[in-house]
Amino acid sequence: MKLATLDNGMPDGALVVVSADGSHYLPATAVAGTLQAAIESWATAEPALRALADRLAAGEGDGTDSASFAAPLPRAWQWLDGSAFRSHGELMETLFGTEPPPPGRPLMYQGLSHEFLSATADVPLPREEDGIDFEGEFGIITDFVPMGVTPDEAMAHIKLLVQINDWSLRAIAPIEMKTGFGWVQAKPACSFAPFAVTPDVLGDAWREGRVHLPLSVDWNGKRFGDALGGVMEFGFHELVAHAASTRSLCAGTIIGSGTVSNSNFREIGSSCIAERRGIEMLDEGKPSTQFMRFGDTVRMESRLPDGSVLFGAIDQKVVKG
Amino acid sequence: MKLATLDNGMPDGALVVVSADGSHYLPATAVAGTLQAAIESWATAEPALRALADRLAAGEGDGTDSASFAAPLPRAWQWLDGSAFRSHGELMETLFGTEPPPPGRPLMYQGLSHEFLSATADVPLPREEDGIDFEGEFGIITDFVPMGVTPDEAMAHIKLLVQINDWSLRAIAPIEMKTGFGWVQAKPACSFAPFAVTPDVLGDAWREGRVHLPLSVDWNGKRFGDALGGVMEFGFHELVAHAASTRSLCAGTIIGSGTVSNSNFREIGSSCIAERRGIEMLDEGKPSTQFMRFGDTVRMESRLPDGSVLFGAIDQKVVKG
Repeated sequence: MKLATLDNGMPDGALVVVSADGSHYLPATAVAGTLQAAIESWATAEPALRALADRLAAGEGDGTDSASFAAPLPRAWQWLDGSAFRSHGELMETLFGTEPPPPGRPLMYQGLSHEFLSATADVPLPREEDGIDFEGEFGIITDFVPMGVTPDEAMAHIKLLVQINDWSLRAIAPIEMKTGFGWVQAKPACSFAPFAVTPDVLGDAWREGRVHLPLSVDWNGKRFGDALGGVMEFGFHELVAHAASTRSLCAGTIIGSGTVSNSNFREIGSSCIAERRGIEMLDEGKPSTQFMRFGDTVRMESRLPDGSVLFGAIDQKVVKG
Repeated sequence: MKLATLDNGMPDGALVVVSADGSHYLPATAVAGTLQAAIESWATAEPALRALADRLAAGEGDGTDSASFAAPLPRAWQWLDGSAFRSHGELMETLFGTEPPPPGRPLMYQGLSHEFLSATADVPLPREEDGIDFEGEFGIITDFVPMGVTPDEAMAHIKLLVQINDWSLRAIAPIEMKTGFGWVQAKPACSFAPFAVTPDVLGDAWREGRVHLPLSVDWNGKRFGDALGGVMEFGFHELVAHAASTRSLCAGTIIGSGTVSNSNFREIGSSCIAERRGIEMLDEGKPSTQFMRFGDTVRMESRLPDGSVLFGAIDQKVVKG
């Protein structure tokens, strides 16, 4: 089942169910006004939403217009981003001279969640010299998770999967990182692909708490990466358990994978510019690829093995904010 | 003007205006259902709320019961905590062997904001061995702040002042800090004193974006500190501008001062146990004060120079969660 949020001018938009191919939708506000409301009462909302999905499969529904979608959750009470791809982490450690994390402990920070950008919204940022970069990620949305949940127990709390562009400002990131306090200025609002999907939509591509699919990234219309999501050092269920060690997680908590990255990045490409620059530093002694300029575009999409639409595409332009 | 939130069983509670001495209140839901709603429409809400405050001053209102108050914002879309007292920062740098921050740049992290504890709620935490510590802070609540605001412009966006206990788990904090990602597990939900007050209530004690009042902290009924809030290296207006450098801030953003701390901490005491342990490390070679045990209590209160009630008191017990 695919869910999405229509931008109706309200902060949380209006919930809709979308057909498997993303071409049609039915309003779901009779079930739950918003995706946040649905995830807060998932046990009762899910079957009613699936009934709408069945009607879409039978041919009902209105045609979708990708520009009318907000982020699945246009804002959330909690956004926690991991960094679960070791090949990315190792490169960043090389680039910034930082130490590897303690073994067995996922990396995670809490980020801006009062506003998420839609898949097609322009991205307003103040300065090119901040080092504007995209970060292609997969993510999950949980229902309420009690404090102290185990990774095995956490798996059942993963209700929806999403695809994210975690915008990053690379000139600021290492300065903030060095303080140990994590990122505030270096992490403006993320963007989301339009469709949040239940794990069953992925079939075998969802296993061990990981999305076993490539994330295709195009920068200014040119392929930049096709890294695979399945090689996360920690599965999403382990990220949920890490986050819930000393807090309960509210329904609608979003957890990100961190930049999708594979150790054969020289062949398969990258999901962020910083990684390519890290490779250039390793191979050529200094980075040659520059960060984004105002007017640059980035497109990110992950499709099912048969080529069919999954989360829909992120396709955005960076503009002077 | 003092505002508070009655716990009515709903996530955001119900807004009330409280008398200057905190003894009486009038419902404010006819103006705005919640404090979040009020701060989102502050220009129109404030005069209507002040009219209720005038009626309270004239003797109207029901008697308050401190146990019925939630945190002023029982949850918020954004909680950013600074660390603006250099004497605290320097001690922590000594304790953890970390470097001082770059000159002119405030320290700040984004923390858990989907749930804030009331002033009298028990504090459920999983393990004593996590190093349970309180952190007494002042804080502010903003209306909408556009990206790129200057410190001078930011001053007018500070609509309310609050008093906070930023619960911290000291055995986890340095591990997370070393990753550069900031704190997730080390920072469970904060607690708030019951009353959010407009800056004018403080008179001369609110100047240069700082709260020039002592914060009295009692641990298990014994005075632990009376540190003054006025010596922040950066005023709250500068913290707002720092936060808004690359993002706009939603109405209802809460920004904290970090642990209130003075350089004469040996005489005036501290607002967290970690600071006292840092002093013991400096003076005696090792810390002798242990962190909190289940059943321990902490009380925090800041009063006006004439002794009158300001934010009300935080008075809590730590329990096994």
